[in-house]
Amino acid sequence: MRAEIISIGTELLLGSILNTNARFISQRLAEHAIDVYHQVTVGDNVDRIVLCLKTAAARSDIVISSGGLGPTEDDVTLKALSIFLGKPLVIHQPTYRAILRQLKKHKIGATPLVIRQCAIPQKAIVFQNKNGTAPALLIPTVLNQERKYFIVLPGPPRELEPLLVQKVLPKLLRCARIKREFFVVRSLKMAGVVESQIAEKVTDLLRRKPPLTVGIYARPGEVELKVMAKSFSKSKATAMARRLEMEIRKRLKGKIYGVNEETLSSVVGDSLRKNKKTLSIAESCTGGLVSHLVTQTAGSSDYFYGGVVAYSNPIKTRLLFIPKKTVKYHGAVSRAVAKKMSDNVRIFFQTDYGIGITGIAGPGGGSPKKPVGLVYIALSDGQKTLCERKRFFGSRQDIQSRAAVAALDLLRLKLKDQQKDQVR
Amino acid sequence: MRAEIISIGTELLLGSILNTNARFISQRLAEHAIDVYHQVTVGDNVDRIVLCLKTAAARSDIVISSGGLGPTEDDVTLKALSIFLGKPLVIHQPTYRAILRQLKKHKIGATPLVIRQCAIPQKAIVFQNKNGTAPALLIPTVLNQERKYFIVLPGPPRELEPLLVQKVLPKLLRCARIKREFFVVRSLKMAGVVESQIAEKVTDLLRRKPPLTVGIYARPGEVELKVMAKSFSKSKATAMARRLEMEIRKRLKGKIYGVNEETLSSVVGDSLRKNKKTLSIAESCTGGLVSHLVTQTAGSSDYFYGGVVAYSNPIKTRLLFIPKKTVKYHGAVSRAVAKKMSDNVRIFFQTDYGIGITGIAGPGGGSPKKPVGLVYIALSDGQKTLCERKRFFGSRQDIQSRAAVAALDLLRLKLKDQQKDQVR
Repeated sequence: MRAEIISIGTELLLGSILNTNARFISQRLAEHAIDVYHQVTVGDNVDRIVLCLKTAAARSDIVISSGGLGPTEDDVTLKALSIFLGKPLVIHQPTYRAILRQLKKHKIGATPLVIRQCAIPQKAIVFQNKNGTAPALLIPTVLNQERKYFIVLPGPPRELEPLLVQKVLPKLLRCARIKREFFVVRSLKMAGVVESQIAEKVTDLLRRKPPLTVGIYARPGEVELKVMAKSFSKSKATAMARRLEMEIRKRLKGKIYGVNEETLSSVVGDSLRKNKKTLSIAESCTGGLVSHLVTQTAGSSDYFYGGVVAYSNPIKTRLLFIPKKTVKYHGAVSRAVAKKMSDNVRIFFQTDYGIGITGIAGPGGGSPKKPVGLVYIALSDGQKTLCERKRFFGSRQDIQSRAAVAALDLLRLKLKDQQKDQVR
Repeated sequence: MRAEIISIGTELLLGSILNTNARFISQRLAEHAIDVYHQVTVGDNVDRIVLCLKTAAARSDIVISSGGLGPTEDDVTLKALSIFLGKPLVIHQPTYRAILRQLKKHKIGATPLVIRQCAIPQKAIVFQNKNGTAPALLIPTVLNQERKYFIVLPGPPRELEPLLVQKVLPKLLRCARIKREFFVVRSLKMAGVVESQIAEKVTDLLRRKPPLTVGIYARPGEVELKVMAKSFSKSKATAMARRLEMEIRKRLKGKIYGVNEETLSSVVGDSLRKNKKTLSIAESCTGGLVSHLVTQTAGSSDYFYGGVVAYSNPIKTRLLFIPKKTVKYHGAVSRAVAKKMSDNVRIFFQTDYGIGITGIAGPGGGSPKKPVGLVYIALSDGQKTLCERKRFFGSRQDIQSRAAVAALDLLRLKLKDQQKDQVR
C-alpha cells in the first residue's frame, strides 16, 4: 500500500506555522509499513486542492488530508473532495448533534456556521472528534477500477493525533485488510563523534532497503544510527534488527553509549547509581549546562550532589581554591586549572567523581594560542585526574553544547573502564 | 512570481525528522511578496524527483529544492536536476577547492566521495557553503519560452538558512528583477505569560491581512507577537509597524521585555551591565539551567560571577549555609530556603543580586501539599529579599524551563523598577 499526505492551509505556505502533522502521520504509517512517497502542502483553494487530490489518487492507494475543516469560508477541504469524488455533501445528523454537545460542554454559543462542518460527502465513515468540532472521515471508494481510501483529518494536532491513532488507522487497517506488520526500531546513540566518520563506516548499511534499513541523524555532539526492521513475525523482526545491531557495534567498537530513549545523561546516571558513586561538577565556559544535563534525568539527586559555576576568576580562586598563581601562570583556560577544578569540587562536595571544565565559548576572548572553541575537560576520582584538551567549532551555543556532551561522555567511558576492572 | 518548494529526503517521508526548511523558505519568500502555492516532499529517488521538478516547473516560476546534496549515493538531487534540465553535470573546480579547504579546517580527511559534491549542472551560479561542503545553486533557465529559476539548497538548516538569506535570495531578486519590497519585522517578546491570554487581547489584530500582519508564537514560558509590515517605501513600512507596535504595547501594559533578537538573557545582561550590577545564582530544581541561560549571552562574565547548583540537601547546608533546622522545619522546597539561598549566594559571591530557586521538577517527589511543579524563586539585593511561589505544569523539562525563565523575568522586573526609582 502506498499513501500520500496532503496538508491543507495557507498558513503553512506562508510559514506562519510549522507542519508537524505531516511528520506525525508519516511516522504512524511507517509503523504499519505503509509507504509514503509524497507529502504535499497546498493552500485553502478549491481548484488547487482538487488538482492535488487528482495527482495523489493517480499515484497512491491511500490519500490523507489534514486541515481545512473549520466552519469558515476559508475551509474548503470537503467541498474539494466532494467535487473530486463526485459525491454530494449531505448534512450528517449525528455530527450535528455531536458538535452541539461539544459547544455546550465548552459553553460556546452555536453559530449558523456550525452547519458547514456537518455537510459531509455521502457514504463516508465518520469519526467524532472529542477535542474539537470537525469529525474525521474515511471514504473507501473505487476509481478506475482501483480501490482507494480517502482519509480526512482536522488540522489542529491535538485533534488530529488521537483521531488518527485511536480511530481512523485501526479502521483503515481492517477495511484495507492490511496485515499487521511488526516493527523493531533500535536507535544506536553515540557522543563525541563526527557524522561523516560514522557514515563512512556504515556506508553500505545506509543504502539498505526495507525490510531492514539504517538511517543516520546528528545534533551538536551526538550522532544516532537508527536500525529499523519489519516483518509479519515479531521474532523475525527482532532477530533481523539484533543481527544488524551486532554488525554495527562490531564496526564502531564501543562508540555506542545507549539505545532508544536512553540519553547520555540517563546512561551516566544509571551507571553512577549502579556503582553507588556520586558526582559534582565545576563549570566555567559551559555555565551550568553540564549540571543541567545531568539533572534532566529524573532521580538524579541520588548521585548528583551539585556543582559550582565558576564564571569569574575570583570565584575560581575563592570558591574552588584554585591557587592564584596557577591561574596567573597557566591562564584560566588551561589543563592545570581544569584539573584543580575537578579535584577541588570533588573534595568540597565530598563526591566520588568531580568534573572540571574551562574553555573559551566565544565569540570573543580567543587568541592564536588559545582560540575560541578550546576547552579543557578534567575528571577526578581521588586517585587519578584525567584531562582532555578539545577544540570545538560552531556558534557559542554549539561550543557549549559540544563541550557539555564531551564531559558527560568522558565520565561514561571512565565508569565503563572501572566496571571492566571490577569484572577482571 | 510564484514559487514552489521541493523538500528532498526519505527521512522526511518516514517522519524521522521534522521539515523546518519548508517553513523557513516560505517565510523568507513571503517577506519578499513571492507567493508559494505548493510545498512538496519527495524521497531520495531520481525518477520521482524528476517528476516533481516537472510538475513544479509547469506551475511555478521559481522552484526551490532542499536536501539530497550529500556525498553519498543516496543524494541524487543534482542528478535529477541534470536529467530534467538536460544539462550535464561537470566538475566545478572552485567548489572542489572550497570543499577541500573546509575539510582541512575541520581536520577531516578527504574521501573519494567528495568529488560527487563538485559535479554541478552547467551554467549554474554557485554559492559556497561556509557551514558545510555542498554549495547552493541558482540556475536561471528558459523552459517553453518561460523564464524559470531553479534554486538548490543543502538540507541541514544551519547550512541552508544563511545561504538562502545572505546569498541566494539577494541574487534571485536581482536576476528576476523583483522590485524590492521593504519589510519591517518587530518580534515583541514576553515571558511568564499564557499564550491564550495574550491572544485574547489582540484577537482582532491576529486577523489582519498584509501589508500589516500580526502572528503569535509560543515556547515554554515565552510568547512572541510578530508584527510584519511591508511596503515599497521603507519609511512607510517602518511607520506602519511602529503604529501597530504602540497599539499592542498599550494593550499589554509593560509585558514586553524585548524585541527581535533580544533574549531574556541578553536584556537582563544589558540591564545589569548598564547599572554596573553583578549577579550570582543558587539553583536546586533547575540544576544549572538559569546559570546556563545567563551565560548563553556573550560577554556575560562582565556581570555574572557564577553560581552554585545545590542539588542535594547536605550541599544546601554545607555550601550555602542554609541552617539545617530551616530545611527540616520548612522543607527543602520552601519560601524560607529559597530566600536563604538567594541571600547567601549573594554574600558568598559578593555580588549585588542573588537568585535562589528551589522546587519540584518531577515526575516523582510531589505531595498534595507540595505538588510537582511547585517552585519558589527568590531574589536578594542586600536590602530586601523577594520570593515568588509558582506552580508550573508540563514535563520535567518544561517545568525546569519555565522556572528558569520566571527567575530571569523576576530579575528583569526588579532591575526595571530600580531604574524607575533612580529616574524619580
